[in-house]
Parts: sequence; C-alpha cells; structure tokens
Amino acid sequence: MLALRTPPDPESLAASVSDQDRSAVAKALNLLDDKRPEARKLAARLLATLPKERLYGSGHLIGLTGPPGAGKSSLTAALVRVWRNRGLAVGILAVDPSSPISGGALLGDRLRMLSSDLDDKVFIRSLACRGEFGGLSAEVWPMSLVMLAAFDIVLVETVGVGQKEIDVSKLTDTTCFVAQPASGDSIQFLKAGIMEIPHVLVVNKADVGLAARKTLSELRGTLKPPAHAGDWQVPALAASATKGTGIEALADSIEAHRAWLTAQGMLPTIRKRFQAEWIVKRLLEEFGRFGIETLGGESRLLDSLVEIPGSPFEQYESLRNRFLTNRGQ
Amino acid sequence: MLALRTPPDPESLAASVSDQDRSAVAKALNLLDDKRPEARKLAARLLATLPKERLYGSGHLIGLTGPPGAGKSSLTAALVRVWRNRGLAVGILAVDPSSPISGGALLGDRLRMLSSDLDDKVFIRSLACRGEFGGLSAEVWPMSLVMLAAFDIVLVETVGVGQKEIDVSKLTDTTCFVAQPASGDSIQFLKAGIMEIPHVLVVNKADVGLAARKTLSELRGTLKPPAHAGDWQVPALAASATKGTGIEALADSIEAHRAWLTAQGMLPTIRKRFQAEWIVKRLLEEFGRFGIETLGGESRLLDSLVEIPGSPFEQYESLRNRFLTNRGQ
Repeated sequence: MLALRTPPDPESLAASVSDQDRSAVAKALNLLDDKRPEARKLAARLLATLPKERLYGSGHLIGLTGPPGAGKSSLTAALVRVWRNRGLAVGILAVDPSSPISGGALLGDRLRMLSSDLDDKVFIRSLACRGEFGGLSAEVWPMSLVMLAAFDIVLVETVGVGQKEIDVSKLTDTTCFVAQPASGDSIQFLKAGIMEIPHVLVVNKADVGLAARKTLSELRGTLKPPAHAGDWQVPALAASATKGTGIEALADSIEAHRAWLTAQGMLPTIRKRFQAEWIVKRLLEEFGRFGIETLGGESRLLDSLVEIPGSPFEQYESLRNRFLTNRGQ
Repeated sequence: MLALRTPPDPESLAASVSDQDRSAVAKALNLLDDKRPEARKLAARLLATLPKERLYGSGHLIGLTGPPGAGKSSLTAALVRVWRNRGLAVGILAVDPSSPISGGALLGDRLRMLSSDLDDKVFIRSLACRGEFGGLSAEVWPMSLVMLAAFDIVLVETVGVGQKEIDVSKLTDTTCFVAQPASGDSIQFLKAGIMEIPHVLVVNKADVGLAARKTLSELRGTLKPPAHAGDWQVPALAASATKGTGIEALADSIEAHRAWLTAQGMLPTIRKRFQAEWIVKRLLEEFGRFGIETLGGESRLLDSLVEIPGSPFEQYESLRNRFLTNRGQ
C-alpha cells in the first residue's frame, strides 16, 4: 500500500517508469490501485505524464487467454524466455483467478519455474479478479499503460472461454487463445460463433500426441480464410510449454500479427479505441445507461474520446463531473 | 407484435394464462416484450394479477445450460416426452444463441423432432440473446413468471461454461449442466471453482462410450460430498438424448432437487431472492452504482425487496421513479 505521507511525485515517477525502473513500476501500479482521493489525483497526473508515443504508438500489448488448466502460466514462462533471448523487456499482468500467479498457489511449481528466469527486464503483477460487471477489473487498462511505458511487451493473462463480454481482446493488440488437448467446449464456442475468434490459436501440451493433433485439426476447421487479400490469417499452432517445442514459432506468430497491425497503420487507432471503450464502460458501470444518455449517448461519446484522446483518468473524471453537475437539470 | 389498438385486458389475460391457454401465454409474452409505455403499464398490471401462490410457491423453474453442441435441445425434447408421460404441462424458454430453437436454424432437425411431440400442454418460446450487460436478457425473469402461472415445469435453456455472471442459476430453482463427452474445458472450470456447481450434472451422448464414461468420472471427481447431513448431493448422470437412455433418471434427479428444496422450505425464499436480484440488476444497468447508492445501497435494497415482494415491474418502476425524482437533490 502507498504511504501517502510521502506522496510520490508523479512526474519523476513517470520518468523512472519510462527508464524501466522496476520499483517505480511497482509504485505506479500501487498508486493506480489506491482508491483514496489524493491518490487518484496523483494517478491521473502520472498517466497524463507518461509519454504518449509509447502508450499509443509502440510496444506490444498481448492477451493470453484460455480455459483453466490449459497451461497458460507455463506457456507464459516459455514465451518470456524467448522474448528475453530476443532482448525484449517484458511486463506480465495476471488476472486469471485459476492461475498460480494470481490465484492462491503463489509458490506453485510453475511460478517457481517462471521465477528462475526472472531478471530485471521481467516484471510480474498479479491482479485479483475483482470483476465488478465484466470480470476484467477496471485497473487492467491503466496498469497496461504504465507497463507499456516501461516494457517492450506487456502480456495480460486471463481465463476465459466463450465470454465475449469479459474478453481480453477488448484491451490488447493481439489475442492468443490457448487450448488444451480435448478442448472440446472451446471448439464448440468458436464453431457456434459465440466466442470471438482470437488472432493466434495455440494448442498447448502438444506432447500429449493424438489428442492434441485432433484438437489442432478441429480448431483449424473453425478458421476461415481471410475475406480480403491482406487481411490477417489466424494461425493455429501446436506447442509444448514443458518440452519447450513450438514456442519460437508461437512468438513469431504473435510478432507477425503486431507487424501486420503496424503495416495497416492500425496500432494507434485500436489503442485509442480501447481507451475510449474503457472510459465509456466505467461510466456505464457508475451511472448506467441513464448516465451515458445524459452525456450524449454512447457512439458520440466514443467518437469524441477517440478523436481527442487524453489521459484516461482525466477524461473519465471530467465526464464524471459533467454528469454529476448536470443531473439536477 | 401486439396490436395496441385493441389492448388486451390484463386481468382477463392473466386468468386465461392461469388456465393454460396457449394463445393467452403467447400474448402475455409479447406484451412483456413490448417496450412502448402503454404496453409496459399493461404488462405491469398483468404481472401484478398473476396468482402469487403459483409464482412463488409452486411449479418448477429449471435451468438447462452447457456448451454449444452438447445436445441441450435434444435433451430438452427427450425430457419433455418424460414429463408429458407424467402428466406435466411444460413451458420452454430458449435463450441459447447456438440452439436450433432460438438460433437461426428454426427448422432444424432437432426442432422437428421436438415438434412431433408437441401437444397443447407444451409451449416453446425462443428469445434472442440481446444480452445488454449480463448476457441473459432482462425479459427472462418476467417471462418465467408468466410461464410459471401456466405450466407445471418451466425450462430455461441457455448456453454457458464458467460464466458466473450470466448464469441461469441466478434465475432458476434447479440448474442442470449438460456436458458433452470430452467436455474438458467445463471440467477445468468446475475444478478451478470458476464455474458455479450446478444442482444436477449430466453427460449427454453417453452412447459415445469410452469418452463419455471418462468425462463422467472426471466430472464426478470435481463433486464434493455435502458439508452437512441433509445438504443436497449433486448427482452426475449419463444420458443419451438420441437413444433415449438415462432420461427418466435425469428427470427423477431434477425432481429430487425440487423435493429437497420444498422439504427445506426454500422455494419461496429463492424465488423472491431471484426477483429482488433481477430488480436490482436492472436498476444497476439503468442507473449504475451511483443509482443503487442513491436508492440506499444494494444490500438494503435487496432486503427490502425480499421482505415485501410485489409485482417485479411495479417495484422496478417505483424505484426508478424514486431515483429520477431524487437525483436533483
């Protein structure tokens, strides 16, 4: 918890975060998590001070999702090794309630495996799944921004199957869905069009053999070729986090999606869109549909927030105050 | 759509619904679905007129949920046959977007199979998954009440795995989860404690053999014995909707849970609680956390709504008006 008796100076904290100072990143995330009014003002200044070109134009924000038990944490550990070998600094935000990182078993085997690879270019933060409305906690977006300011890759690990509404794909550049062999239900959700198609599909535990190959071929069967030339073609890969096979190819596919987004000039657009949606979602949770209508309606709000993007906390507070001032009319 | 030029008289409509008049049930459901102010007033009067002892003290409200492709619709058809043989009148509310009943394939094989068993004691209504916040459309509760007034059994069919927040178990007396052979992801969600434990578990397509038996034994492995003598012991069954095996036993288990609820004196309590939660959820969607606080806070609101239960639309409207009147202060 933050000791507000010696409040951090947001400007110098932002500078240290940008210098990849791990203790500054930890302090900044604590500040974002602090609900006291003074802390919220400092947090708003912090976010406003982070370099905009990093938040909206660089880095790679990756969502890793899938059912519990699919081996997301082991796969994260294996990916971190590849990324570190490639010289990339990595921040991990784990919001999976079944994960050994964010869940109860903090000293579980997989975390220890992960820890053995930790150096000062890897940062892990776990986030309890406080899930007011949507499951994904409101802190995920601002915390992702702080991490984007510090690291080359920011990975958000969540649990999910078929849950469009609490989907990490609403927050990240590239969504990677991790299936386990015999992930029959996930395949059905994809087939039925209930689950959002991810950008990269991977069957973990590929060493299991026949079951993994069957699952992979079923998943491939749910993927359609791109409608237009130049559209993204979703790859479906096999990997084994424990044997270390297929991890380089997975990292390559994730990076290829990032390169595709950049080639399309889409990166700044989607980041600004995510932020606008995050702001509108928080207003919706606080003031309901009534509040959104009072503020001019969802689509006008989204458009204005994408048009003139600013610090998310400041924009949120300004809309919040506008509602509270207007509600008497 | 309702022709408001000849508005139905809510009192006589309620009487016809209670007499199991199928066209009256259809009219009543249309009325609940009509968003025009005059229709909403009539709908509120209709709900207020339905016999309270049927809404809160009798009938059986059953939720059937599971991944797409698990065969929920075929299982519904098979259960309907058993219930009809037992002389029970059945209403079905299908809110599963992947279901042949509510989904696109209205003339699909399974619906035709179901239709062949239809008599005037079976009523089916499909509901598009409009899912504002929670996935389960706001109409499900009031429609369930109308059906409870008319039929002995009301079955709500939804799609889901691990989605606590859009869970049909928040609306029904007995939740039955339908797994398919190789329902690996559902098992993981149950194991990880992310998915609510249902009251009855059934593996459909039991004719598939080995895979079904393996899934059944894995599901049984996730179930704990009751903590206290007299607590409900969740059964895990095998069935085959297409071969017709295990259906009687499934109907018996579902009925046993209803008998257990009655023996505990819990039926009126949970129905009133569902209704209170439905009202608070709608207020939350419309006015946000701010609205709920303005109205005295969630737990006080829930307690007062459970204490003095009334017609859900009237209670909702009265709280809505209280918020709109107070917000200027």
